[in-house]
Amino acid sequence: MKLATLRNSRPDGQLVVLSADLTRFVSAGRIAPTLQAALDDWNALLPGLSALAAQLDAGAIAGQPFDPAMALAPLPRAYQWIDGAGYLSHLERVRSLKGSKDEELQSVRPLLYQGGSDSLSAPTDPIRVTDPDLAIDFEAEVAVIIGAVPMGATRDQASAAIRLVTVCNDVSLRRLVADDLQNGFGFFHAKPSTSFAPIVATPESLGGAWRDDRLHLPVRIEVNGTLYGQPNAGAEMHFDFADLIVEAARTRNLASGTIVGGGTVSVRHDESLPIKATGIGFACIAEARTVEKLKYGRARTPFLKPGDTVRIAAVAGDGQSVFGDIVQRVALA
Amino acid sequence: MKLATLRNSRPDGQLVVLSADLTRFVSAGRIAPTLQAALDDWNALLPGLSALAAQLDAGAIAGQPFDPAMALAPLPRAYQWIDGAGYLSHLERVRSLKGSKDEELQSVRPLLYQGGSDSLSAPTDPIRVTDPDLAIDFEAEVAVIIGAVPMGATRDQASAAIRLVTVCNDVSLRRLVADDLQNGFGFFHAKPSTSFAPIVATPESLGGAWRDDRLHLPVRIEVNGTLYGQPNAGAEMHFDFADLIVEAARTRNLASGTIVGGGTVSVRHDESLPIKATGIGFACIAEARTVEKLKYGRARTPFLKPGDTVRIAAVAGDGQSVFGDIVQRVALA
Repeated sequence: MKLATLRNSRPDGQLVVLSADLTRFVSAGRIAPTLQAALDDWNALLPGLSALAAQLDAGAIAGQPFDPAMALAPLPRAYQWIDGAGYLSHLERVRSLKGSKDEELQSVRPLLYQGGSDSLSAPTDPIRVTDPDLAIDFEAEVAVIIGAVPMGATRDQASAAIRLVTVCNDVSLRRLVADDLQNGFGFFHAKPSTSFAPIVATPESLGGAWRDDRLHLPVRIEVNGTLYGQPNAGAEMHFDFADLIVEAARTRNLASGTIVGGGTVSVRHDESLPIKATGIGFACIAEARTVEKLKYGRARTPFLKPGDTVRIAAVAGDGQSVFGDIVQRVALA
Repeated sequence: MKLATLRNSRPDGQLVVLSADLTRFVSAGRIAPTLQAALDDWNALLPGLSALAAQLDAGAIAGQPFDPAMALAPLPRAYQWIDGAGYLSHLERVRSLKGSKDEELQSVRPLLYQGGSDSLSAPTDPIRVTDPDLAIDFEAEVAVIIGAVPMGATRDQASAAIRLVTVCNDVSLRRLVADDLQNGFGFFHAKPSTSFAPIVATPESLGGAWRDDRLHLPVRIEVNGTLYGQPNAGAEMHFDFADLIVEAARTRNLASGTIVGGGTVSVRHDESLPIKATGIGFACIAEARTVEKLKYGRARTPFLKPGDTVRIAAVAGDGQSVFGDIVQRVALA
């Protein structure tokens, strides 16, 4: 089953059920007006939502044409957004930029940070900044939305709580990262509103692409139409989503509707930008720049500037954008 | 006007309006079923809520007896919880414990951290921990709930966005603080669910106790019936709530219903525990222990252990608990 949240006059938008081919939708309003409402009573409401999807696919309901430009973030405001660091090669490549002091690699227990979740951006919202010189970067990630998880949850409990899967763009202002981290209180100013793809999918609806608590699909990133990367999100995810959820629940319960990010998708290789059409590349600019510094003595790929557009999508074998595209233009606020 | 959220079968509870003397309540359900709903349309709904309060105070509505034990956190789950560091003497006293590396004091721009907001504790909820040896501490703070604030807001915009005031207990697991901060990604495991007093009040309803964007009342803390502190929250708040909101909105919008904490209330003095009945004392155990280390060579006041009870309240001149009491017992999960 695939769901989306469409823009209406309310802050949480309107929940809709999509056809399997993503071309049509029907309102889920009689079952759950919003995605959070669906998540709050998931087990009770899932049969009704699934039945709507089946009727839509069978033609028993005509539905309306789905326009991703009408989509908000699946949860336009969420009660929690936790971002993990699932990919060690991302940490290896950017660690020097982040102002972290030592460290032996965090390969035993995943790093997590508490992100702002009050204003999550729609897939086509601009990336608004007050200053063009903040070293604006994207981070293409896989994210899951979960049901309630108790403190001290096991891997099995964590895995079973995964309700929906999508991709997101954890926008990062690199110039502010070191400040935030040296303060010692963690990311704050460096991580403005994260944006989300228009569609969320149940793990079951992803077939073989979802296994071992990972999404085994390439995440494709273009900047101004140029390919920057297409790393497979399942290839080198060291900590899977069950690991990240277990870690997040070590000292607290997690409420339904918590979003957990897997961290910037990253795969080890020795490419640099520009990459070939068959290359792997990078899911953020910071990694590309670190590689350039090592290879050429200086970073060549600029960060994003006002007017630039970044496009992010998870791509199936048939070329379909599985969750729809994130397409964001950088704009001065 | 004073409001509370009472327990019902739903995760967000039921919004009620209180009488000025806090003894009676009437449901606000016909106007706004939940506090978040009220905050989403505050300007439109405030007249109706105020009218209910006036009718209750005039006896035109009988209302029902208010039992604080039925209260949830005002926002049992919120879209954002940002905690600031408004009191420099708290930072001075605990800095050595926190694993921060340098640092010249953060007296120019306030430190903020992004807290978990998905599961905020009721005033009488236990403090649940999985391990009794995590160095369990309370932090008594003033908190405000705000309306929407745009990125780059001015102090005037920030001040005008303050809708409601209360106190909270930012529960801290000191044994995990250094780990969290050395990881570089900020507080996560060290800050489990924050609890809130049962009542929120509009700034206007606090009279002279709310001025200069600060609460000028002592916040009284007892552990197992013994007074630990009663520092005045307005006396030495270096960064007021307008400062904290401006800082929080530097790179992003803040949504309505964002909760901003002022940081552990702290006042400079050379007392140590036990304090006299007229003493100032401490709003967290970590500060008391740092003072003891300096004075006596070792910390004498233990952290909380299972079975201990902490009580926190802001107290008016007439002895009234302005927002009701937070009363939490430590329990092994």
